[in-house]
Amino acid sequence: MTRAKIIIDCDPGQDDAINLLMAFAAPEALDVLGVTAVSGNLPLAVTERNIRILCELAGRTDVPVFAGCTRPMVLEPVHAGHIHGADGIDGMRVYAPTHPLGAQHAVNWIVDTLMAAAPASITLVPTGPLTNIAMALVMEPRIAGRIERIVLMGGAMREGGNYTASAEFNIRVDPHAADVVFRCGRPITAFGLDVSHQLLGLPHRLARIAALGNPVAEAAHGMLAFFNRHDSAKYGTEGAPLHDPCTIGWLLRPELFQLKPCHVAIETGSALTMGHTAVDFWGVSGRAPNCDWAQGVDADGFFDLLTKLLARY
Amino acid sequence: MTRAKIIIDCDPGQDDAINLLMAFAAPEALDVLGVTAVSGNLPLAVTERNIRILCELAGRTDVPVFAGCTRPMVLEPVHAGHIHGADGIDGMRVYAPTHPLGAQHAVNWIVDTLMAAAPASITLVPTGPLTNIAMALVMEPRIAGRIERIVLMGGAMREGGNYTASAEFNIRVDPHAADVVFRCGRPITAFGLDVSHQLLGLPHRLARIAALGNPVAEAAHGMLAFFNRHDSAKYGTEGAPLHDPCTIGWLLRPELFQLKPCHVAIETGSALTMGHTAVDFWGVSGRAPNCDWAQGVDADGFFDLLTKLLARY
Amino acid sequence: MTRAKIIIDCDPGQDDAINLLMAFAAPEALDVLGVTAVSGNLPLAVTERNIRILCELAGRTDVPVFAGCTRPMVLEPVHAGHIHGADGIDGMRVYAPTHPLGAQHAVNWIVDTLMAAAPASITLVPTGPLTNIAMALVMEPRIAGRIERIVLMGGAMREGGNYTASAEFNIRVDPHAADVVFRCGRPITAFGLDVSHQLLGLPHRLARIAALGNPVAEAAHGMLAFFNRHDSAKYGTEGAPLHDPCTIGWLLRPELFQLKPCHVAIETGSALTMGHTAVDFWGVSGRAPNCDWAQGVDADGFFDLLTKLLARY
Amino acid sequence: MTRAKIIIDCDPGQDDAINLLMAFAAPEALDVLGVTAVSGNLPLAVTERNIRILCELAGRTDVPVFAGCTRPMVLEPVHAGHIHGADGIDGMRVYAPTHPLGAQHAVNWIVDTLMAAAPASITLVPTGPLTNIAMALVMEPRIAGRIERIVLMGGAMREGGNYTASAEFNIRVDPHAADVVFRCGRPITAFGLDVSHQLLGLPHRLARIAALGNPVAEAAHGMLAFFNRHDSAKYGTEGAPLHDPCTIGWLLRPELFQLKPCHVAIETGSALTMGHTAVDFWGVSGRAPNCDWAQGVDADGFFDLLTKLLARY
Repeated sequence: MTRAKIIIDCDPGQDDAINLLMAFAAPEALDVLGVTAVSGNLPLAVTERNIRILCELAGRTDVPVFAGCTRPMVLEPVHAGHIHGADGIDGMRVYAPTHPLGAQHAVNWIVDTLMAAAPASITLVPTGPLTNIAMALVMEPRIAGRIERIVLMGGAMREGGNYTASAEFNIRVDPHAADVVFRCGRPITAFGLDVSHQLLGLPHRLARIAALGNPVAEAAHGMLAFFNRHDSAKYGTEGAPLHDPCTIGWLLRPELFQLKPCHVAIETGSALTMGHTAVDFWGVSGRAPNCDWAQGVDADGFFDLLTKLLARY
Repeated sequence: MTRAKIIIDCDPGQDDAINLLMAFAAPEALDVLGVTAVSGNLPLAVTERNIRILCELAGRTDVPVFAGCTRPMVLEPVHAGHIHGADGIDGMRVYAPTHPLGAQHAVNWIVDTLMAAAPASITLVPTGPLTNIAMALVMEPRIAGRIERIVLMGGAMREGGNYTASAEFNIRVDPHAADVVFRCGRPITAFGLDVSHQLLGLPHRLARIAALGNPVAEAAHGMLAFFNRHDSAKYGTEGAPLHDPCTIGWLLRPELFQLKPCHVAIETGSALTMGHTAVDFWGVSGRAPNCDWAQGVDADGFFDLLTKLLARY
Repeated sequence: MTRAKIIIDCDPGQDDAINLLMAFAAPEALDVLGVTAVSGNLPLAVTERNIRILCELAGRTDVPVFAGCTRPMVLEPVHAGHIHGADGIDGMRVYAPTHPLGAQHAVNWIVDTLMAAAPASITLVPTGPLTNIAMALVMEPRIAGRIERIVLMGGAMREGGNYTASAEFNIRVDPHAADVVFRCGRPITAFGLDVSHQLLGLPHRLARIAALGNPVAEAAHGMLAFFNRHDSAKYGTEGAPLHDPCTIGWLLRPELFQLKPCHVAIETGSALTMGHTAVDFWGVSGRAPNCDWAQGVDADGFFDLLTKLLARY
Repeated sequence: MTRAKIIIDCDPGQDDAINLLMAFAAPEALDVLGVTAVSGNLPLAVTERNIRILCELAGRTDVPVFAGCTRPMVLEPVHAGHIHGADGIDGMRVYAPTHPLGAQHAVNWIVDTLMAAAPASITLVPTGPLTNIAMALVMEPRIAGRIERIVLMGGAMREGGNYTASAEFNIRVDPHAADVVFRCGRPITAFGLDVSHQLLGLPHRLARIAALGNPVAEAAHGMLAFFNRHDSAKYGTEGAPLHDPCTIGWLLRPELFQLKPCHVAIETGSALTMGHTAVDFWGVSGRAPNCDWAQGVDADGFFDLLTKLLARY
């Protein structure tokens, strides 16, 4: 099996953090070329720090880290510290890491890395607002040809919005970036709330992780437990939805997920529905699918995978 | 039990027709003051004729019928003859009825009827585009105080749109009317695709209706069978969703349905999402609920009810 | 010369009042079939009363008056009492008139009057928000064929907006109605701020009216003087723009105005530009003109006409 | 007098070219740090070549040139070759220049140059779509503090749109970039069609330039004459409007222009009015001015200036 070359663009955020720990634990399958930080759940200074902490926690300081955009393309920046805590990865130990930040702007590093790569050779894995990816596509549209696929967390159809009535947080924060990405012409696999709301951090699932005993699993458990506190109340469930880890989960075990090819367009013009993902689930728009839209997941299978990966540490 | 005074505003359409046949079969519970026709599934000339045919079929020529608007408030009219057939009630016998059309414009009749009624005394049951109801509210805003509740079929959250990616047909055809209605300040119960997609005309359910043997049940069966042909292919199910009959079904047997109080706003500004119902299902908008949104139904219980009502003929 | 059959739909407002006084003074040219009131500058109860007062002032109680809509088609009602005064016709004597209000809703009276008329035989002269006209077109689209022309005050291109940055008051108050009217397919002559800002109530012009000495001229002068107080400050001119009287002025003396055939579309989707008249002045849209757009006026000639008409009383 | 440090961002285009020739002719007043090319009137490959040709024509190969974005931030690229000719500077000799293109992306060069500069020390002069400027502001928002002022050509109020009914070309091509720039918090001077339509390339004005006899003046004359052919027909005038040279003209001779502080917002949400500049000329929005909006110019004085500058070559 060939290792997939991937770039993870994220804004940890506990669920971004779990996703990174999954990716770092599967070097036989995933060649993480670098991790880029974006403003989203927390401001950029927090998200890039958190990525570096996670590299150190996972023993993967071989992976370079770059800081990207501090704001969305057009709208004003917003954050979600009320959900993730002020540190974004609350639930694990937060400190000043020594793993250095790369000198380049993440957008320029993405452009340079892709332009130096073979056609359709690199998979982008964005789990925050799509600002960095879209900015790279505007700075140098020819990078599109070097992208194998974009595997992202964002959007919602069945589950309504978690940030506004009709929009999910990642897309709502930078809808213009999402619009650029969904129209870029490359294959997209999108994991939105429809599937992440099926991935609940139920007590017995978290207990298995806690039982692993290693420091990384302990950190993961701490973050999952923190996450549960807010969202269990919001959704009236026993555990919080797990969003971002769908992306690495699918790259490692695609058979766990049900996808449907759909056309997805992004609302950028209306205050009411700004950032809504218009998923043409029933094929009524006459537009060709531009996205494999995740609609189902084997949740127990997914938590098995997560537990096994954390057990490797 | 008091009989509920209701006005049914509709655009038959097979599912509007089934809904009328249900209402007409329950005179002990429902006092149908009149039925008003609107442009929607088919042009007005077809929908008002169909209502009069259905009154005759059901032996309810005591119910007056009025023709309303031939077009939406702002947008150009569109119809759905490709789904319902050119006659709208294809599957049953169509002919020129003798039950006369009322002389008044439906909008004026609605205004006059409500203004002559006691406060909060009449329930409106619109199962087509909301043009007539909204026009009446603009012609005479004081009618709002006479409305007990508006029980409507329209909108979608979980199921995406059936007309565009993000919008259901009734709301999409006249989003401005829907906007007026959802902001009118009176209680609303809304049955959208989220629940109607759970009400499938499965073969064993239709077989029970066919077995009733009376002419009304035969007509109902013919229409349900016609409806199945188109939608079963579209949705990949064994039977078509039954939309409009949720309204009379709920008035007669509310315990069959699960509702959730939500704020619902209507998109009127964006071409992409025009007519989308922004259902604040998770309470993230901070706006007080203006609607009881239907999210679940006991489908077998519903078809029991339908079968029993048709058995009365 | 044939007398033009006209219906004036208005929301007095001092400038609507001047316009009515002009129309009432020219019976040889204008057959005023009725005057209909709409919510706009002031609430409906004020505007319909003012119309009846003006009929009495002008000795034209032969003209029937009807009250129309109390609110716009979709948006919430707004008024401009801060400009016109609480009575709308501040500057003249306000009292409870005896000239009765017609029993019919203005929208129904417009529909009935037009449906009873010959094709292309009646000119509509709306000088307030276009609610009543659009509602009539939705209630009965066939009235369009009976309309000879719509001669309206509304919109702005060169002068920017007077209510928001990009929108004039009449159109902004009910943009959806304006959209319906501008797409109705009948000839439209539109007088917006581009031309009314050239018609300033300069002191020497008002002095001539004051000198006429008759009670109607005194009332007109009082209203024009009142109007000057607010707008002279706003626009930094010596006199206020005179908006609505362009319509009757053009019907009586079209040679005073310069018009250009343009396509005009109405913005109904954006909060920022809601009610903007997109006047395709340079023909870049590729859409056929639907409107004769007023761009210039002989202001001295216009005030001569106004003075002569008021001298008739 | 201190020389103003400026960066010119443009898409020549004959009027961009005239503007560059004006700037290059005034080294005592303007320190042109560099010229950056953007996609706009013509594709980027044409506009960056044209800038290099103009540097050579003007003998200013000391000025570095950088190529920026090939597309707008969100929308698809459009061009205006039908107005400017396939070469953009049709009317002068076009060839393959030897003045090299800088290695950096223009956006990165702008960011680096500004970050290395003192606070409020550099004036940006964009005369094309605002893509490069906005992208730089998103890549590194701290550059805002280094900008003294942005002096741009774009927008329209009095003159309606030249690309759509309500929008001017530069803003319409990348409205999202314009939105970012107009909200960046730094002083803006904007020259739109309201003023450029007062700057007509009338025959006697062009004759004076032709009479100068030097090669640069000949090139300028050739381009102005080419420009006249298209626009004279479009606007029904004897000469074409001169747009972009307002910017350098104002930097050199601000007394030639009348400006008014206004709030300007950019429409990014509506297909009809996309790219409209909502100029709050009458102060009705309650928003503080963010722009000095040009409303008038001494056209003869401007052409005197232009002629004198071209005479220096």
